[in-house]
Amino acid sequence: MPQTIGVGMLGYAFMGKAHAHAYKTLFYVAWPPPLVPRLAVVAGRDEPSVRAAAERYGFDRAVTRWEDVVADPAVDLFDNCGPNHLHAEPTIAAVEAGKHVICEKPLGRDADESFGIWQAAEAAGVVHMCAFNYRFVPAIRLARELIAGGRLGKVLHVRGRYLQDWGATSEEQWRFDRSLAGSGALGDIGSHLVDLVRYLVGEITAVTASTRTFQPERSVDDAFGAVCELDQGALGTLEASRFAPGRKNGLALEVNAEDGSLAFDLERPNELLVSEGGAGFRTTLVTEPEHPFGGWWWPPGHVIGWEHTFVHELEHLLGAIAGRNEVAPHGATFEDGYRAAEVCDAILRSSVAGAREEVAYRSVTASERAAARR
Amino acid sequence: MPQTIGVGMLGYAFMGKAHAHAYKTLFYVAWPPPLVPRLAVVAGRDEPSVRAAAERYGFDRAVTRWEDVVADPAVDLFDNCGPNHLHAEPTIAAVEAGKHVICEKPLGRDADESFGIWQAAEAAGVVHMCAFNYRFVPAIRLARELIAGGRLGKVLHVRGRYLQDWGATSEEQWRFDRSLAGSGALGDIGSHLVDLVRYLVGEITAVTASTRTFQPERSVDDAFGAVCELDQGALGTLEASRFAPGRKNGLALEVNAEDGSLAFDLERPNELLVSEGGAGFRTTLVTEPEHPFGGWWWPPGHVIGWEHTFVHELEHLLGAIAGRNEVAPHGATFEDGYRAAEVCDAILRSSVAGAREEVAYRSVTASERAAARR
Amino acid sequence: MPQTIGVGMLGYAFMGKAHAHAYKTLFYVAWPPPLVPRLAVVAGRDEPSVRAAAERYGFDRAVTRWEDVVADPAVDLFDNCGPNHLHAEPTIAAVEAGKHVICEKPLGRDADESFGIWQAAEAAGVVHMCAFNYRFVPAIRLARELIAGGRLGKVLHVRGRYLQDWGATSEEQWRFDRSLAGSGALGDIGSHLVDLVRYLVGEITAVTASTRTFQPERSVDDAFGAVCELDQGALGTLEASRFAPGRKNGLALEVNAEDGSLAFDLERPNELLVSEGGAGFRTTLVTEPEHPFGGWWWPPGHVIGWEHTFVHELEHLLGAIAGRNEVAPHGATFEDGYRAAEVCDAILRSSVAGAREEVAYRSVTASERAAARR
Amino acid sequence: MPQTIGVGMLGYAFMGKAHAHAYKTLFYVAWPPPLVPRLAVVAGRDEPSVRAAAERYGFDRAVTRWEDVVADPAVDLFDNCGPNHLHAEPTIAAVEAGKHVICEKPLGRDADESFGIWQAAEAAGVVHMCAFNYRFVPAIRLARELIAGGRLGKVLHVRGRYLQDWGATSEEQWRFDRSLAGSGALGDIGSHLVDLVRYLVGEITAVTASTRTFQPERSVDDAFGAVCELDQGALGTLEASRFAPGRKNGLALEVNAEDGSLAFDLERPNELLVSEGGAGFRTTLVTEPEHPFGGWWWPPGHVIGWEHTFVHELEHLLGAIAGRNEVAPHGATFEDGYRAAEVCDAILRSSVAGAREEVAYRSVTASERAAARR
Repeated sequence: MPQTIGVGMLGYAFMGKAHAHAYKTLFYVAWPPPLVPRLAVVAGRDEPSVRAAAERYGFDRAVTRWEDVVADPAVDLFDNCGPNHLHAEPTIAAVEAGKHVICEKPLGRDADESFGIWQAAEAAGVVHMCAFNYRFVPAIRLARELIAGGRLGKVLHVRGRYLQDWGATSEEQWRFDRSLAGSGALGDIGSHLVDLVRYLVGEITAVTASTRTFQPERSVDDAFGAVCELDQGALGTLEASRFAPGRKNGLALEVNAEDGSLAFDLERPNELLVSEGGAGFRTTLVTEPEHPFGGWWWPPGHVIGWEHTFVHELEHLLGAIAGRNEVAPHGATFEDGYRAAEVCDAILRSSVAGAREEVAYRSVTASERAAARR
Repeated sequence: MPQTIGVGMLGYAFMGKAHAHAYKTLFYVAWPPPLVPRLAVVAGRDEPSVRAAAERYGFDRAVTRWEDVVADPAVDLFDNCGPNHLHAEPTIAAVEAGKHVICEKPLGRDADESFGIWQAAEAAGVVHMCAFNYRFVPAIRLARELIAGGRLGKVLHVRGRYLQDWGATSEEQWRFDRSLAGSGALGDIGSHLVDLVRYLVGEITAVTASTRTFQPERSVDDAFGAVCELDQGALGTLEASRFAPGRKNGLALEVNAEDGSLAFDLERPNELLVSEGGAGFRTTLVTEPEHPFGGWWWPPGHVIGWEHTFVHELEHLLGAIAGRNEVAPHGATFEDGYRAAEVCDAILRSSVAGAREEVAYRSVTASERAAARR
Repeated sequence: MPQTIGVGMLGYAFMGKAHAHAYKTLFYVAWPPPLVPRLAVVAGRDEPSVRAAAERYGFDRAVTRWEDVVADPAVDLFDNCGPNHLHAEPTIAAVEAGKHVICEKPLGRDADESFGIWQAAEAAGVVHMCAFNYRFVPAIRLARELIAGGRLGKVLHVRGRYLQDWGATSEEQWRFDRSLAGSGALGDIGSHLVDLVRYLVGEITAVTASTRTFQPERSVDDAFGAVCELDQGALGTLEASRFAPGRKNGLALEVNAEDGSLAFDLERPNELLVSEGGAGFRTTLVTEPEHPFGGWWWPPGHVIGWEHTFVHELEHLLGAIAGRNEVAPHGATFEDGYRAAEVCDAILRSSVAGAREEVAYRSVTASERAAARR
Repeated sequence: MPQTIGVGMLGYAFMGKAHAHAYKTLFYVAWPPPLVPRLAVVAGRDEPSVRAAAERYGFDRAVTRWEDVVADPAVDLFDNCGPNHLHAEPTIAAVEAGKHVICEKPLGRDADESFGIWQAAEAAGVVHMCAFNYRFVPAIRLARELIAGGRLGKVLHVRGRYLQDWGATSEEQWRFDRSLAGSGALGDIGSHLVDLVRYLVGEITAVTASTRTFQPERSVDDAFGAVCELDQGALGTLEASRFAPGRKNGLALEVNAEDGSLAFDLERPNELLVSEGGAGFRTTLVTEPEHPFGGWWWPPGHVIGWEHTFVHELEHLLGAIAGRNEVAPHGATFEDGYRAAEVCDAILRSSVAGAREEVAYRSVTASERAAARR
């Protein structure tokens, strides 16, 4: 039996449930797991609710202050499932306490905050991951293999749209408040697109964009559209909205390369569409034994759910902590979280300025970092 | 916290993994669960393998004889995930030992064996379920609600096909041996179609059918086609094959009624297609809060996997054991398992005879059963 | 410029319009045409209507008695677009008058009548075609090429369903009267399935079937389901209904062979789905220059309509009359029309008898035919 | 019988064939036609080829100089199917000779040229149409009816992409030469998107865009991406490319409005997808009698081809010439052709400038036009 790792979590709602589910499931699905997660402590503001969550998900104890998670010696890994404005401070505190960390996306509310979180984690020397879980959809991993393996030739186009329909009716007020969320559809769902473009194709070097806020009392965007320049010369188009009736979780991605194309839709996450040799698209159910994560689950054709991206992701994180693999390139590090935030910031700047904006990524060498710490 | 129920399982391969996954997941997804499953004991023939499985899935102990499961006082529920020829004897022993039971489909290798299993369970007065898990696909449950609620009017047609492609290459030899499996594609996947037709539309009263065995050394069917009469006058067509390249788990079902139609495909299990008012089909992602099981999982558009049918199914079983609900009509009882077997037997008889065969269901009253026991 | 051929048509409604459209279109689409059709005369019972039709479609004259078409020396080709009960007598009269003939499907109201029409045409030595136009869908022709070329290996399964939704509301009363129509959904749309199975896979040797009449005042079937034996050992399932809400012209066909599968749906007639090499289905738009009829129309991706099957079909017929090609195998002869009728008759017999029925095709040698004529 | 109108055509290749087909077909499909087209004369540079085309399509005569078409008194309507650099001069000459005109898209090679063509036609007082034929797809007309009728509420998003795959292999060199074509994918297929956005949703007021030329020897764009501002506040995203393997004629359009969404794909042109009431998309075959152009063709479910958009379009043009209807709003006038060109020019400017560009439409009053003429 592998060693145990203590997990401390901030938040127990949508993302907390998904992460808890994954820790419990990876144990036997990815058998033997790199490390055996022990759910040590969960933090939330409302004491009865967090107690109930602890009982439900099997945490050893519940606390109402995240500081108690960070300080807990039983915690080796800090898992931040809190809202955006609770990403930076607790995560930085955790890394400074020597905890490994995973933080939900977007990493910070803007590039500056994200950069700070990344730098703190680097300085602390811990393992860090930004939870861009769609990298762990088997069809997306297969797409990466096809592109990176050169099978489709040079990429010319990538287009992504992430459409949902709940923008007019949601009651999660923090999501519409810039001081709490940073941005709206852009950071919440658009950042997934940015990360997938970076993972599958390459770095975004410039953007030109417009945003929209359909409900005037909101301080964040409800939608955006952007045209992107990529470092290898490809043209990218990205769009996200929370005001697209009929689209429930419509992350659709298409890549056109010299010798073929790929298409993916998160509403049918087990399928990858591939066009090669001048022919139309073949629908591949990514459930064969030879497919990514194929051996983990069921016989061919027995599709897995959205939630199991987290099983793959957290197993990968535990593998990194155990020294079996690196977080990059298949997992997103805090650097990836930061870089996505730079692109999102450039989209906002471009929308305001009405001009193409370069994306200037800050890079920090180890010696600079050491100097900065002094 | 609800009471605990001890589970003893026979088998730990494909179905055992799926059931174990479900017991562990229902605890927190269907919170609070009707009963808290405790994985007490698992049986398998190969000692190292069954030990490893027990460690992986969290069973308290592993045994190599199913008799030790049945005799274990820690076991309240016997879960039979064994191959078809190990359905009858262990299940009957379990009910006679007073255990509640769930048995994988097909219930027995033929109608006679299935009838015996059912009668034994009835005589013992335990809760019994035949694991026709596709009743627990949210889209199927929604289809049932639409049909049973009368929204589509009288059903005129039901057609089902279950196509897979592994028949030429499989190495699971027991599946091609009549003495072990009972039948081939018919009992393995065709029985799912029969059960869904019965669940959604009504009783099958007569069949006319042909079977095929493409590999001559096999003693079971590789495929069958059947035309069915239904008790309310609808016409049914059913077909299954393990020799359909490109179809991985292609259970497709369509119902045409006077005022509308429904269509479903297990390769896209989160979708139900509905036609009403003379218009074309609307694709509904069955992930809304108001949909069956909608509140258990994630926000709209975040699809669940094949594996989660078992979570719904086993929660339902535990609810029946806890007295919260009946197994029927949403769960399949052993009577449903028996009735599906009668239809399958009629299909085999019709294929041999070249004639339409009535399906004669045996019914047993409680007094007959009491008399039989004396 | 090629020679001219005079066309005399019976009927000017749905099928008459489709055929007239095709004669006018093939001239320049299939340039140069094998023969130049001249629309000489059209017959219909209602004089004002048939006059208007003649003006609209460009016939030289309009008559109210089909006998005047058959007797017209300007007519070289008799095109029978009349209702089923007007297939036999006018067609036989036309061939006896030495006209080439095309007759809409079903050829006759039953196998006997169809056999008589075929024999008359053979005896007369004219070119004859039964208008099973779906053989001339480019995707169907491509399917035939793939199967006949052996690319998919031996065929194991063929399944066809033809679903429409107008059965409850139609006012075309002759279609529900056995004396006028012969049969219902079976002859009208089921015969297309039978013909396509014969064209793509092979001869049907036995059937077992049930029919349904949902509206009791009707003397024909509203629907049928059938399981078929094919001469090469494949298993076929066929079904048709006029009571399938949401299905407008839903002829769906699937072939599973040892090394691959094909699927087609007439509601998306420009697409052929092909599975090979164990992978899923690739959607091919059959509009490339190298595809059947690809050079006739537009650049790739510019889809053609249902109506253009008739352009292909009638050009093929004119090619046969001009001696450029034979009607068979790509066009259906009257023998094909007769053979489809034998299968349909067997389906009706099987439904009544509740037994598998052999399909006994009558074959007639030239000497027998000569003897019969004496 | 309606009056005759003499048609003179420039060009007889792809578009010439499509227009000729439509003139011949509308006669009987749109019976009675507003005017009866007589194909008077066709012009082309190569004498043998234009003679053959005249014979094939039934023109009375063939000429090698377009000036002879314009000067021909038998010509009432000048139909310009020539390449882009032959749009302005012949069209202006035709209107100055008092001919009604239809000109293929894009109207001119840029906004200036397009404006000049428009102004000339206005000054001449003739009927003018720019052949944006996709306005005449029945599904697009139905989309317009749904949007304009207010059924979906205020439009928030419109996104269009037009993807083809022949850019790397085409031998039509004029299409890659700016002096002949004006622009590349932008004017050729992107202009269709611009026109459809204007037709369905409203005026485009500003754009921000990037273009790409993948083959460096070309002087036009191979692809572009653009984000658009619309006059009613909607956000638009447009993209076109000739380098998208597997996309043959992939014009896909989606509109999201407050109360519903629409989606369309030109590779399945008979289908409109509609989402209303918070539900998913319903696939509507736009072939019912109550649908646009529904009565012209066949019974429900019998789909029409791409080419028949031209039948609808040219019938509409003849109706305008006959005084039965106006060209606008369902047909595109030269003003629409000019306005699309202004948007395309702004896209090019934005790409170069890296800045959002306003679209400044020139409007000319009748008195200004009269003054200009003096």
